[in-house]
Amino acid sequence: MEAASFVTFGQYLRPNFYFLLLIFLQNGPPIVEGVWPLPQTFTSSIERYPLSPEAFYFEYGSQSAAQQGCSVLDGAFMRYFPLLFPDYTGNGVLRLYGDKPFHLVVTVDRDDCESYPHEDSSERYNLSVSARQASLNAETVWGALRGLETFSQLVYQDDFGSYFVNKTDIADFPRFQFRGILLDTSRHYLPVQTILQTLDAMAYSKFNVFHWHIVDDPSFPYQSRTYPDLSSKGAFHPMTHIYTQSDVRRVISHARLWGIRVLPEFDSPGHTKSWGKGQSDLLTPCYKGSSLSGTFGPVNPILPSTYQFMATLFKEVSLVFPDSHIHLGGDEVNFSCWSSNPDVRAFMKKMGFGVDFTKLEAFYMENIVNITSALNKTAIVWQDVFDYHERRSSLSVVEVWKGGCYLCEVRRVVKAGLRVILASPWYLDQPGPTHNWARFYTVWPLAFKGTEEQKKLVIGGEVCMWGEYVDATNLTPRLWPRASAAAERLWSDEKQTSSVDKAFPRFQDFRCKLVRRGIRAEPLYVGHCKHEYQGR
Amino acid sequence: MEAASFVTFGQYLRPNFYFLLLIFLQNGPPIVEGVWPLPQTFTSSIERYPLSPEAFYFEYGSQSAAQQGCSVLDGAFMRYFPLLFPDYTGNGVLRLYGDKPFHLVVTVDRDDCESYPHEDSSERYNLSVSARQASLNAETVWGALRGLETFSQLVYQDDFGSYFVNKTDIADFPRFQFRGILLDTSRHYLPVQTILQTLDAMAYSKFNVFHWHIVDDPSFPYQSRTYPDLSSKGAFHPMTHIYTQSDVRRVISHARLWGIRVLPEFDSPGHTKSWGKGQSDLLTPCYKGSSLSGTFGPVNPILPSTYQFMATLFKEVSLVFPDSHIHLGGDEVNFSCWSSNPDVRAFMKKMGFGVDFTKLEAFYMENIVNITSALNKTAIVWQDVFDYHERRSSLSVVEVWKGGCYLCEVRRVVKAGLRVILASPWYLDQPGPTHNWARFYTVWPLAFKGTEEQKKLVIGGEVCMWGEYVDATNLTPRLWPRASAAAERLWSDEKQTSSVDKAFPRFQDFRCKLVRRGIRAEPLYVGHCKHEYQGR
Repeated sequence: MEAASFVTFGQYLRPNFYFLLLIFLQNGPPIVEGVWPLPQTFTSSIERYPLSPEAFYFEYGSQSAAQQGCSVLDGAFMRYFPLLFPDYTGNGVLRLYGDKPFHLVVTVDRDDCESYPHEDSSERYNLSVSARQASLNAETVWGALRGLETFSQLVYQDDFGSYFVNKTDIADFPRFQFRGILLDTSRHYLPVQTILQTLDAMAYSKFNVFHWHIVDDPSFPYQSRTYPDLSSKGAFHPMTHIYTQSDVRRVISHARLWGIRVLPEFDSPGHTKSWGKGQSDLLTPCYKGSSLSGTFGPVNPILPSTYQFMATLFKEVSLVFPDSHIHLGGDEVNFSCWSSNPDVRAFMKKMGFGVDFTKLEAFYMENIVNITSALNKTAIVWQDVFDYHERRSSLSVVEVWKGGCYLCEVRRVVKAGLRVILASPWYLDQPGPTHNWARFYTVWPLAFKGTEEQKKLVIGGEVCMWGEYVDATNLTPRLWPRASAAAERLWSDEKQTSSVDKAFPRFQDFRCKLVRRGIRAEPLYVGHCKHEYQGR
Repeated sequence: MEAASFVTFGQYLRPNFYFLLLIFLQNGPPIVEGVWPLPQTFTSSIERYPLSPEAFYFEYGSQSAAQQGCSVLDGAFMRYFPLLFPDYTGNGVLRLYGDKPFHLVVTVDRDDCESYPHEDSSERYNLSVSARQASLNAETVWGALRGLETFSQLVYQDDFGSYFVNKTDIADFPRFQFRGILLDTSRHYLPVQTILQTLDAMAYSKFNVFHWHIVDDPSFPYQSRTYPDLSSKGAFHPMTHIYTQSDVRRVISHARLWGIRVLPEFDSPGHTKSWGKGQSDLLTPCYKGSSLSGTFGPVNPILPSTYQFMATLFKEVSLVFPDSHIHLGGDEVNFSCWSSNPDVRAFMKKMGFGVDFTKLEAFYMENIVNITSALNKTAIVWQDVFDYHERRSSLSVVEVWKGGCYLCEVRRVVKAGLRVILASPWYLDQPGPTHNWARFYTVWPLAFKGTEEQKKLVIGGEVCMWGEYVDATNLTPRLWPRASAAAERLWSDEKQTSSVDKAFPRFQDFRCKLVRRGIRAEPLYVGHCKHEYQGR
C-alpha cells in the first residue's frame, strides 16, 4: 500500500543500489563523502589527520593582507568553529593531554574586509590540507569564505565522534559569477529570522546573491523612510508584517558576512497593487466605458508625478541597498487598464505609440532605468522588458524566466550584447516530488549556439521561490536541498558534474550535512542521516 | 514572472475575493471565524464575553462522574490553558482588579479517566457558552476532550490582545468513529518528539487514531523485548534510530491523553526485508534456477518456525499496545520469490493450492489472523487480503488503499459484511500543490449503492503519510493543513460541508490557529496570519 507503487523513478535513482552503498560507507572505513558543490579540481587521499576542537586554530597567514580584526574573516572563524565541531560543548572535560595542534592558515591578497561583495569579486581559492596544517589562499575575503565552507565539509566524525580531515588539495573557483536565490516577501511575509537562516544555508551551497523580491501586489512590507505610508497602508500589517530600516540593515549585514550580495527588486509598472494603498495617483485609474471603474491598474506612466515619486523612492533605495545592481522588474504588465483610460490613450497618440502598449511600457521602463542609472545603479529587468524594448542599448542585464525554449531567449539576449541571468529552469516554489532534484541539476545554461564572447554574457542563474504557497512554515524544506542542485550547476565544472548517478550519494551526504546544521532540508529518498533533524 | 502565471485555479479558490474578505474580517467587528472540523449543530450570536486568563477556571461539574484527579481531564486543562491564552505569561502584572471570573464546567457521565479510548468510545459532547460560564457535557472524557478543543477554537483576541468568546450552543458528535493518520517510521525514522507533536496536531483536528506503520522493508526500529536482534540488526542504527519500550509507552500515553488510539501495524508477509536481518530463517530464500540466489523474499509461509516466531512476537506486541485492534498489513506480496523456491512449490502442491500463490498468501494471513484473534485482537488488513481471500468470514476490518474506483471496492467489502476503513483518496505523502486541499475535502465515502446497514460498515477513513520522501524535516508542512481537510470530511455532516467555497475562509483561519500553536502548517494561498510562524 505504500506510495512507491505509484511513482516512476528515473533510472538514475536506483534506490536499492545507493541504499546499500550508503550502508557500506557507514560501516566501512571512514571516507570523505565529498564537497558540494564540487570543486573545480580536487585531489584527496585516504591519509587522514585527527582534529581536536581543543587544539584547532584559525590563523591569518603572515603574508595575508587581512589580519585579526577583519570583520568578515573573524566572524567566519566564529561561525565555522561550531560547524566544524558540532558536538563540542566547550566544557573541555575530555581534553586529552597531548592533542596535537592543527592550524588553518588563511591568506588573502586584498584587505577587502569592510567592503561589500560585488559582481566582479573573485571567489577563487586554493586549499591544501596536510598534517597539522591547512593553507587556504584567496585573492579576496570572499574567496576565503568559500574555502572555509569547503574545509568545513571535509571534516567528518568517525563512529566514536572523533574528528578527522583527509589530506586534500583543492583549487576552486565558480563557473558563473551570479548564483542567486529569489525570495518573495510580498505574497507571504517572511520573518527576518527566516531570511537570515536562508542566507546561512545559501552560503553552505556557495550561493552569492540574495534577490529580494521585497514588494508586489499583495503587500508592501518595505518601510520606506521617505514614503512611510507605503508600508503602513500597503503591508499586511503596519507593525508586525514590515521590514524596518533596521531589519533591512540586519539582512544586508548578515549577507555581507557570508559574501552574499543583496539585490533588491522594486518591480513596476505591474505587480504594484499594494503601492497604490499608500501613494495616491500612482496607479492608473481604470475605466469601464466612459466612467471610472473604481479599480486601478499598473503604475500610471503618463504623469510627471509618477517619475518624481520613483526618483525619490529609488534614491532612498539606492542608499539603503549598497549593491551596484538593482532589479526593476518590468514583467507581466496587463495593458487592459491602460487601454481603458482615455488620458493614457491620448498620451499614446501624442507620443506616436499608436495602440502598441508595449511602447508605452518601454517608455516607462526607459525612464525608470534612467533614474537608477543616474544613481549609479545597473538595472536588471525581467525578460519582458527586453522582448518589448526597441532601444535595447539602454538595457544591461536581462533575467530570463519564461518556460518553453528558454535557451532561445538567452541566445537572443546575448546576441543583442546584453548580459543574462537564467531563472526559467529553477522555479522551485511549485511543490513537486523531492526526487525531481535531478530536473534542477540537469540544466545546461550554455547549450546554445553562440560565440565564446556571447557565452560569457551568461553571468549566472537564479533559483526562484515565489510566495504564493510558501511562508516560514515550509520555505526551508521546499528550498533545500533542491536549490543546492542548481548551486552545483552554477559553481562546478559541467563536465565533471554531468552525471546524476554520480552526484546522488554526494548529494545525499550533503543533505545530511545541512540537516546536521539545523537546516530542515527534506530527504531525497528512503534512508537516514546519522543525525536526524531534532527540532519540532 | 511569478509562479501564479503557471497555475490554473479552480473556481473555488477565488483568491481575490477571499483576500478581501479576510481583510474585512480583520478590520471589521470581531467575529468568530468558526470551528474546524465543523460541529454537527452550531448556533452562535454576536454577543461576546470577555475572558481573562487571571480569572478563568476549569471546573468539574458537581454531577460529573470524573472529578479532580482525573488524569485525562486534569492534563487537558493544563494543556488547553496556554492554547486559550497564548500571550499570557503568568506574570500577572497587568491583572485588572475586578476581572469577572469565567467558569468552564465539565461534566461527564462516566469515569473512564484511566482507560484507553477504544473503537466504540463516545465522542459526543454538548457545549453551551453564556455569560461567565460555559457548560461542557459529555458521556466520556474523550467526548469532553473534543469539546475542549472546540471551546479553544471559539476563543479569540481583538486587536488589543483581549480575549473573547461569543455566546454559542453546540451539540456535536463524529460522523465516523475511525479517523486516522498513518505515519511510516521505517522508510525514514521519525524522532519521538516529531510523533508527539503530530499527536498534538491530530487532536486539534479531532483525529482519533494514530496508525503506526512502525516497520517495513528499509528498517525495523521497534525494539522488541523478545527479539532484540530485530532492531539491533534491522534498524538504520541500533541505538539512535529505534523506538525503545519506553519510547513506545510515551507515545501511547501521550496519545491517550488526547483521546487518540495507537494502532500498531506489523506488516507481513511482504514488506519485511528488514526483519530478515535479525531473524534467520524467517524470510523465504529465493532461487535462481536450481540454486539459492542469496536474496530473500516475503516471510516464509511454509515453516512452523515462522508461526512460532509470529505468535511470540504478536504476543509481545499485544501486550505493549493496549488497543483492541492490530493492523496486520498483508499488502503487495511479490510472488516471484515464493515461486522460485522448490520447497514452497512442494508445499503448494501438498496443500492443493496449484500455482495460485494468492491461496498461499491467504493461508499465511489466516494463520496470522488466528494468532492475533487468540490474543483477543481484532485484525485490520489492507484490501489485498480481502481480494485474495476465499474464507472472508475470518476477516473483520479491511482498509481500502488502491486508487481507481475505490468506492467499488468499498462496496464489495461491505457486501461481504466486513467493516471498511477508506484510505485511497487521502494519500498525502506525495508532494502536491498546497491548493489541492480541496481534492482531499471533496471525498464522499458513502456515495455508493448500498443499504443503510452496509453504509454503517464504513467505519471511517485514514490519511496516509508514507515515508519515502518524508522525515522530521518536512512531515509537518506536508501533513498540515491538508490532513485537516480529511478530518472535516470524517467528523462533520456531509451536507453542511459540501462546499469548498464556504469552507475556504474557515480553513484559512484554522490553518492560522495551527501556526499560532506552533504547528508548521503550510499556507493555502497568498495572505498572512496575524501571528506568523516564528521558529526556524
